[in-house]
Amino acid sequence: MGPHPAVAAIRLAVRRVLHDILNEHTSTARTPDPHERPPSPLVLVACSGGADSMALASALAFEAPKLGIRAGGVTVDHGLQPGSDLRAEEVVLRLRELGLDPVESTAVRVGRDGGPEAAARDARYAALDAAAVRHGAAAVLLGHTRDDQAETVLLGLARGSGIRSLSGMAAVSGAGGRYRRPFLHLDRQTARKACMVQSLPVWDDPHNADPAYTRSRLRHEGLPALEKALGKGVVEALARTAQLSRDDADALDTWATQAEATVRDAADGLQCAKLYALPPAVRRRILRRAAIEAGAPPGSLFARHIEEVDRLITCWRGQGAINLPGKVVAQRQGGRLVIRQG
Amino acid sequence: MGPHPAVAAIRLAVRRVLHDILNEHTSTARTPDPHERPPSPLVLVACSGGADSMALASALAFEAPKLGIRAGGVTVDHGLQPGSDLRAEEVVLRLRELGLDPVESTAVRVGRDGGPEAAARDARYAALDAAAVRHGAAAVLLGHTRDDQAETVLLGLARGSGIRSLSGMAAVSGAGGRYRRPFLHLDRQTARKACMVQSLPVWDDPHNADPAYTRSRLRHEGLPALEKALGKGVVEALARTAQLSRDDADALDTWATQAEATVRDAADGLQCAKLYALPPAVRRRILRRAAIEAGAPPGSLFARHIEEVDRLITCWRGQGAINLPGKVVAQRQGGRLVIRQG
Repeated sequence: MGPHPAVAAIRLAVRRVLHDILNEHTSTARTPDPHERPPSPLVLVACSGGADSMALASALAFEAPKLGIRAGGVTVDHGLQPGSDLRAEEVVLRLRELGLDPVESTAVRVGRDGGPEAAARDARYAALDAAAVRHGAAAVLLGHTRDDQAETVLLGLARGSGIRSLSGMAAVSGAGGRYRRPFLHLDRQTARKACMVQSLPVWDDPHNADPAYTRSRLRHEGLPALEKALGKGVVEALARTAQLSRDDADALDTWATQAEATVRDAADGLQCAKLYALPPAVRRRILRRAAIEAGAPPGSLFARHIEEVDRLITCWRGQGAINLPGKVVAQRQGGRLVIRQG
Repeated sequence: MGPHPAVAAIRLAVRRVLHDILNEHTSTARTPDPHERPPSPLVLVACSGGADSMALASALAFEAPKLGIRAGGVTVDHGLQPGSDLRAEEVVLRLRELGLDPVESTAVRVGRDGGPEAAARDARYAALDAAAVRHGAAAVLLGHTRDDQAETVLLGLARGSGIRSLSGMAAVSGAGGRYRRPFLHLDRQTARKACMVQSLPVWDDPHNADPAYTRSRLRHEGLPALEKALGKGVVEALARTAQLSRDDADALDTWATQAEATVRDAADGLQCAKLYALPPAVRRRILRRAAIEAGAPPGSLFARHIEEVDRLITCWRGQGAINLPGKVVAQRQGGRLVIRQG
């Protein structure tokens, strides 16, 4: 008799990702003697002790040895709740019990930039980056599920800033493709079930149920209401939207890069006639990049700014210079558009 | 003292659209004698008697004469509720009271294709098309607001079929750009307020509050819950997403059209090597079109079908022919991909 379907599902998801990592590792690892096998790679799991990442850790512990991969784990102590250090030590013990090695807990100081959720995320990834480098890890696995992806798409939708913000989290991201998300197509329920049938104790972060957090409100109220109105397939549809939006955004970025080279003139201005001939979606991407390159902070540069600059191209009637965030100024000079810090 | 801000807002929105219609009309209308002015164009409003379209009718009645435009109205009797014919006659009277002429009620038979909402919509647009042709109208105004747009985006999101389905309703659509939506950037509350301060009686369609309809559930439960989780700006963000997605989808369609011409070979097959070199978003659009051209019904052709065909290009390991809806078969023959009805 094989494992429970939920356990089989999490293992399969991890196995696929380990295969990818192994293929990349074998093709890039170099040893002095070409006949010698490269050292076996190390893959870390980032584990909070919650159901998703505990399931991930268990699958990694099961699959890695069969592929000659070393498996380790990291847990990040955000220091946001009393006793978080003890909790982190407990996670360390559980990961060791699964047979992972090395395992470590790393404490971070969470700042305030961009709100509590963004600040915690920034601190967490910095700690994971450092741990990966310290241990020479080939990859760090993250336990984000399809449900997390759906929530991320809705959070992006609320920004209303276009398809890049709808594209959610990537299956592969970070420096050199360090971060992998094997569960991005798996639902949260499967991860939870896999922990249950393997008798893995899991910890429910009280933050996940705290209505002070946008993501938590989305999870417990927004998404269920949307499912009630639109049907049970909403989470899957949102995850698929993420993938399709990501591919589309990538293609349009490629186009914008190619087109940008053709519209730049010798003095680094943009030729208005050539910009005018481009589709609006491509033209506005070029304008946005030019503004950022000139020093406008991406986070403060909104669609309405770019639309106003765009009107210098599409509705030219002698408008004055347009002020953008970061003291950047966009100005039409004859047939040229000049965007620079004023 | 000027009009109430809500009335000023609906009139401005209509005035802008009438200006567009007038410019297009003047540049395309031809009279035998070039010195003779073209006949004044007729603009119809499609009016259900609800607040959005009554507000639209009142603004059209106010603005059209000032621009030398004739203003008329059509109401569609869907025959779905007892007494709907009397209700339609009441709407006709109200439109006449506003000074619109011609005004007519047109009865339709709603079928069942695609569910009750789609069937009613199809019947309605067929009737409006016919009315526009019968009266020689230059345009038909529709009362869709920003709130309707937000709902449409969420309905598209639930399909999970990519950014085209996120692009909502266009400001200009239909044969020759017949349909115009002046209120697409205006909220429903403004239209309702404008009716109130003008003492226009409005009719609340009980269908709009009937939880049997997906759109109604979305309006009364889904969207409010989403706003509660994500903040008040959700409707605006969804409407902006629609516009950005539309521009992006248009640009990618343009790219796919251009690229398709370069990947077709003399015998109307697709060259795999050239397809492989394209970004996935562009390649999949070409594959989808080729399947539809070969006879696959667009509504039955899902992302997973196209992904499977795509693997004939990206993960070729001797797969057999792939069966698509509409008895269409995709098959790799050497370096060529052939998609045709089998």
